[in-house]
Amino acid sequence: MRAREIDLIRHLPLFAALSPDQMPELLSAALLQRFARGTRLFHQGDQPDFLHILVEGAVELSALSAEGRETTIEILAPVDSFILAAVLLDTPYLMGAQTLEGSRLLMLPAKRLRAEIAQRPDLALRMLASMAEEFRKMVRQLKDMKLRTGTERLAAYLLRLHRLGGGSGGGVTLPVPKRVLAGRLAMSPENLSRALATLRDHGVVVRGTVIELTDIPRLEAFCLPDALIDGEDGGAGLADAAATC
Amino acid sequence: MRAREIDLIRHLPLFAALSPDQMPELLSAALLQRFARGTRLFHQGDQPDFLHILVEGAVELSALSAEGRETTIEILAPVDSFILAAVLLDTPYLMGAQTLEGSRLLMLPAKRLRAEIAQRPDLALRMLASMAEEFRKMVRQLKDMKLRTGTERLAAYLLRLHRLGGGSGGGVTLPVPKRVLAGRLAMSPENLSRALATLRDHGVVVRGTVIELTDIPRLEAFCLPDALIDGEDGGAGLADAAATC
Repeated sequence: MRAREIDLIRHLPLFAALSPDQMPELLSAALLQRFARGTRLFHQGDQPDFLHILVEGAVELSALSAEGRETTIEILAPVDSFILAAVLLDTPYLMGAQTLEGSRLLMLPAKRLRAEIAQRPDLALRMLASMAEEFRKMVRQLKDMKLRTGTERLAAYLLRLHRLGGGSGGGVTLPVPKRVLAGRLAMSPENLSRALATLRDHGVVVRGTVIELTDIPRLEAFCLPDALIDGEDGGAGLADAAATC
Repeated sequence: MRAREIDLIRHLPLFAALSPDQMPELLSAALLQRFARGTRLFHQGDQPDFLHILVEGAVELSALSAEGRETTIEILAPVDSFILAAVLLDTPYLMGAQTLEGSRLLMLPAKRLRAEIAQRPDLALRMLASMAEEFRKMVRQLKDMKLRTGTERLAAYLLRLHRLGGGSGGGVTLPVPKRVLAGRLAMSPENLSRALATLRDHGVVVRGTVIELTDIPRLEAFCLPDALIDGEDGGAGLADAAATC
């Protein structure tokens, strides 16, 4: 691995707790690879060989029913890692993964990573914080699904996109195909289209691939954004604990 | 804490990695308490003061919408711990918790626990495995919701109860009120009643509080049980890694 890539990896949140001299050993077995759009990285039910870290691009985590129907569970952005839980437990993946666009991935061999974690408390703490954040993301999605209608979920999603884009005017661009977004929001593609039409009354105007939000307060009044559903984690409990010991 | 209680706690999976002489120190600050049915243990949005471990009884994790509507996210049984993610990150609970029946809980002060984890790699590994299992439970629930109809979810739930009860004849007893079960399955109580009626055609007969499953293969053919949704985790990746280092 080239120096530039090692430098990139050192700045990933997952490895921020490690001192630089520990990195070459962990990374000697790592792979940094590019994948074309639509590449299947692994299937649900596969035994995990690597922890994947999305350095560039976009990845969909999907689930497949016994009848062969597929849906999106989560959409990942750099620099998300996936799927830590399966890698740590050495159990079959509950979800499959494929690239939604050309992507660059860092792949850490699972067995080596587990051995490193067992030997290095600082790495274990970092993984523990990451695992806790991933758990909370899933809880947020479950709350979103159980407490809101599909149309409310879509409205809250558009408001999140708007906030992540800096909250300025000019509308938002859907970062993923409608099929993927529908799955993420637990709607059929038809219901997603209907929901977009319904939101016209709340200031949502679709212009090609750009969606304009012409009346943010009205949209907020419709879906009631909630920090315990739509927020992000910023907790530092373990980092604080580690710093004081 | 009495010797009998310390002995009980030593046998909890979460602490199985610790040697007995480390236990008194960790447990000196712990509380073992009984709570009546319907006791609110904490609210969503509260800052976590304790890691709770359900030793006896049943606990509901619930979510509250901005409009004040409440629903069940998860139903806990002994000896589940909750909610590790909020305790580790020291961030507000995303869910509230209340007892569904008279319950006995072990409460470990959150700050002390974080400090212990930062100092004890064996405890960190145990927590990491537990966190990974909790993440996978949430993924299983999301898959259940996204890939199945409400009636299929109910059928799969009844089959899980049947399997956990040893798979013998004689029917299953709902362990929680219908309101709670409906929330867990993301259905309204009315839809739950309708779904139970629908399942009559698949051999599900309600007799008071007991539900008889008169034709298991037929019910399985209806909801297609799936180890990657309805199964349990049995991975030992980190335990193996820890044993070899």
